[in-house]
Amino acid sequence: MYEIEVKVKMPHAKMKEDLIKKGAVFSETEQQSDTYFNSPMRDFAKTDEALRIRAVNGAGEITYKGKKMDTVSKTRPEYNSPADEREMKKILSALGFFVSGAVNKSREIYLWDNFVIGFDTVSGLGEFIEVESAIREEANPNEIQTEIDRIFDFLSEYGMTRKDSVTKSYLEMVLEAKEK
Amino acid sequence: MYEIEVKVKMPHAKMKEDLIKKGAVFSETEQQSDTYFNSPMRDFAKTDEALRIRAVNGAGEITYKGKKMDTVSKTRPEYNSPADEREMKKILSALGFFVSGAVNKSREIYLWDNFVIGFDTVSGLGEFIEVESAIREEANPNEIQTEIDRIFDFLSEYGMTRKDSVTKSYLEMVLEAKEK
Repeated sequence: MYEIEVKVKMPHAKMKEDLIKKGAVFSETEQQSDTYFNSPMRDFAKTDEALRIRAVNGAGEITYKGKKMDTVSKTRPEYNSPADEREMKKILSALGFFVSGAVNKSREIYLWDNFVIGFDTVSGLGEFIEVESAIREEANPNEIQTEIDRIFDFLSEYGMTRKDSVTKSYLEMVLEAKEK
Repeated sequence: MYEIEVKVKMPHAKMKEDLIKKGAVFSETEQQSDTYFNSPMRDFAKTDEALRIRAVNGAGEITYKGKKMDTVSKTRPEYNSPADEREMKKILSALGFFVSGAVNKSREIYLWDNFVIGFDTVSGLGEFIEVESAIREEANPNEIQTEIDRIFDFLSEYGMTRKDSVTKSYLEMVLEAKEK
């Protein structure tokens, strides 16, 4: 499964009110505590990969994200598995991987028009909105592009353009904020 | 958690009958389908590590086993996490790990005297019995040795001595059988 994600930095209130008015379905609020790992073989910051252990409301999962396949959206291969957070961290450490950073956020999730819309409040960074759409791995470039266009059409209703797309990860932004 | 395991190659019938007579508790029968991965950084066959994805009656788990800490028993650090078998295989492949072999077996599990006793029938290898005992990671060498002795005392009742302990993994034996 490929995940197409577009992220913008914008306050939540206006879009959330509007979506609720239109009948968007509230799904859940998640407390996401993310620990990112880097590889001893190649620097994931340079190869644009990510290896993450996430605790969502206490339950663990591991996610690998491959190199982005598109410059504007964040289309990329993504693999997910449930995991025991503590044990999986020990396994990754034993295999030579090491912690590169942590991101903590609360995510309020709404479902609308086949999108999963996350209203993210990220510790130290503020409010972001992430619009996600899933597409099968066999999708051709045209199908992917059509889905990306659909996401940006949606965002344009709220004054956001392709230029507002944030392609940096929260981890990158958290690490940059630390350096300042 | 450390796992102390002693494995011997012996037919199941006699010990199983005896344990049932003594009141051992039958726990379950598992169909275990194991896929072993090796590392691009070091050869686990040489470093005596193991990285395994196991499907047990359909449910997945990932296990890392570190270098053995004892020459007779198979005492070693071991970390386990539930996992989605298919997704976790994709994650390991994306991280550079590769399949080194597969072991399929059925394991009939009995509980007796704080031991977990597995009656293993391994595809291509035959019948083995594995006696397992768990010990906390903070245990000192004396405590570990006492537990190892207790396992061998138990096995001696069935004519097995320390010399009969099989320290080779099923994977090693499967790979060796293939080479022949």
